[in-house]
Amino acid sequence: MLKIIVDAMGGDNSPSVNVKGTVKAVNQIKDLQIVLVGDESKLTPLLAQEKYDASRLEVLHACEVISCNDKPTEAIKTKKDSSMSRSFELLRTDTEARALVSLGSTGALLAGTVLRVGRIKGVKRPAFCPILPTMIAGNIVGICDSGANVDCDPVYLQQFAVMGSLYLNKAYGVNAPRVALLNIGAEEEKGDALRKETYQLLKNTDGINFVGNMEARDLLSGDVDLVVCDGFSGNILLKSTEGACLELMRLLKKSMMSSFKSKMGALLIKDKMYEVKDMMDYNNYGGAVLLGAAKTVIKGHGSSKEEAVYQCILQAYNMEANNLCQAIAQEIAQATAAPQSPAAE
Amino acid sequence: MLKIIVDAMGGDNSPSVNVKGTVKAVNQIKDLQIVLVGDESKLTPLLAQEKYDASRLEVLHACEVISCNDKPTEAIKTKKDSSMSRSFELLRTDTEARALVSLGSTGALLAGTVLRVGRIKGVKRPAFCPILPTMIAGNIVGICDSGANVDCDPVYLQQFAVMGSLYLNKAYGVNAPRVALLNIGAEEEKGDALRKETYQLLKNTDGINFVGNMEARDLLSGDVDLVVCDGFSGNILLKSTEGACLELMRLLKKSMMSSFKSKMGALLIKDKMYEVKDMMDYNNYGGAVLLGAAKTVIKGHGSSKEEAVYQCILQAYNMEANNLCQAIAQEIAQATAAPQSPAAE
Repeated sequence: MLKIIVDAMGGDNSPSVNVKGTVKAVNQIKDLQIVLVGDESKLTPLLAQEKYDASRLEVLHACEVISCNDKPTEAIKTKKDSSMSRSFELLRTDTEARALVSLGSTGALLAGTVLRVGRIKGVKRPAFCPILPTMIAGNIVGICDSGANVDCDPVYLQQFAVMGSLYLNKAYGVNAPRVALLNIGAEEEKGDALRKETYQLLKNTDGINFVGNMEARDLLSGDVDLVVCDGFSGNILLKSTEGACLELMRLLKKSMMSSFKSKMGALLIKDKMYEVKDMMDYNNYGGAVLLGAAKTVIKGHGSSKEEAVYQCILQAYNMEANNLCQAIAQEIAQATAAPQSPAAE
Repeated sequence: MLKIIVDAMGGDNSPSVNVKGTVKAVNQIKDLQIVLVGDESKLTPLLAQEKYDASRLEVLHACEVISCNDKPTEAIKTKKDSSMSRSFELLRTDTEARALVSLGSTGALLAGTVLRVGRIKGVKRPAFCPILPTMIAGNIVGICDSGANVDCDPVYLQQFAVMGSLYLNKAYGVNAPRVALLNIGAEEEKGDALRKETYQLLKNTDGINFVGNMEARDLLSGDVDLVVCDGFSGNILLKSTEGACLELMRLLKKSMMSSFKSKMGALLIKDKMYEVKDMMDYNNYGGAVLLGAAKTVIKGHGSSKEEAVYQCILQAYNMEANNLCQAIAQEIAQATAAPQSPAAE
């Protein structure tokens, strides 16, 4: 049995999608044990409508909720009876609990991880690594860090590269992930001091497949598996890409509805549009894992639906089934030791 | 007469599109005088095929070309007979020459501006300000800085806000442009030290219409007229947005060509797709102006076509007809003086 904790109250559509996604996971994955944390008076009636193996799904009561308006660190410290605080408490104390999935406040999840779970030995900073679909069917790209660390030094970025590579390999089966450094030009000497130093460090890091700088316009090209960046520019990269795709789809739809002829055309291409929309839908790609945390923590999109919750749980399961945290601990010890020794150059 | 210099050799499709776009500008704008700088042996036969008022278009010979592989500062200093160096030399020495338009190397154009043209008094750093169409027809958004300055301090960003506001007003007629600070969250306290300090500075800057932080996903929403950012994150914002739109259009096209039914549909919506493509096409929006330079310098997209060259020249013409450089000089003197006086708070 592999035990995963699910925060039932986080997200825009909680707790209904959280419950449904969790039930799906319990039904699909036979050696999965779930603790669903949240308001019992709301969860019990929802669970009563579902069919599942009750021996593998228990509820832990928590009557409060941490919202996105709460100050993250303060909320984790003071809202002791919130679903997120209780989830972290359980993750910390229950040695059998392997992972936490939440759709709640990103800041609070980060604060809770740092305060209650801690980092893997040797990891300087945990980092978010969301996955996006590229324009090549079935192909994905990870962005690390996408927002946990606004200020970074080269060693943080080196660790993001090591952790992200292991993650793509263990959770998604990507062989020797191609790692690129997000920069404002392809040439080695481009960018600010952070980029120049990081470039040299990545070039000399064993165990990663570093392919050089990548410009933001190539994110979805499928040429790169993992983009390494500080959390500020990673957040800009992730959100502008999401925003542009959403706005463009909206514009196309509006434009097609503006004449009789194009409406007829829209009917004929509807299936293909849905295919593309589905391909781009983050609900199918799980959440952003917080790499470097001592236990697996996954942040799902706030507007996730049932399928996204299920995908997040599946992702946590795959990571833990492949012992990602242990693998990170080993690699980090090796990679960060290497540059200190001149013989490694 | 308003005299503008056009670098005939920069860009992927030079000199043919440069010549055609220039001729269009001369034919459309009656008080425009152009100096086309480049290899006479190539320009003369191209010009011979066109109809225009020859008294308002002269050629200045320059036999070399600065490529994107040249080191920017070195190229400006050593390739004296390149079209770009000659253009800058003319812009510097000819008091009647008001502006330069080039599709050539961004780095060299920046280096040439700094070395040969200089800054407006009081301006700390010149900054690129490209314009993107938003998803609302006829509406645009500027990004300042999009790549000239990878390292910035709050006063630079304050100046980008002042200069960009004047630019949108003078060159595009935007009334009281809504200025936002690019950040990783909407709340005032979000971001790194640079963002927090800049937020306070912008809030207290007279003469700009500061509307707070903006997340990258809202760039194309039409809610903001000018996004202020350091050149590194501005470059990520610009290029990831361009890249996502291009990749998505490519994917949709491929998807629609994959079945007979959707091919029929594609025929019916073709016009609308072209409308959207046209709306998004940077060829219709001119180039990225280098705000803060002592004279107007415009960088067109390297892959510009004839229409884009024309739009860049028109843009330079509009800026100069409205005396943008003088307006910037005045506002910068006032805005940067204000925060030093405690009475202004």
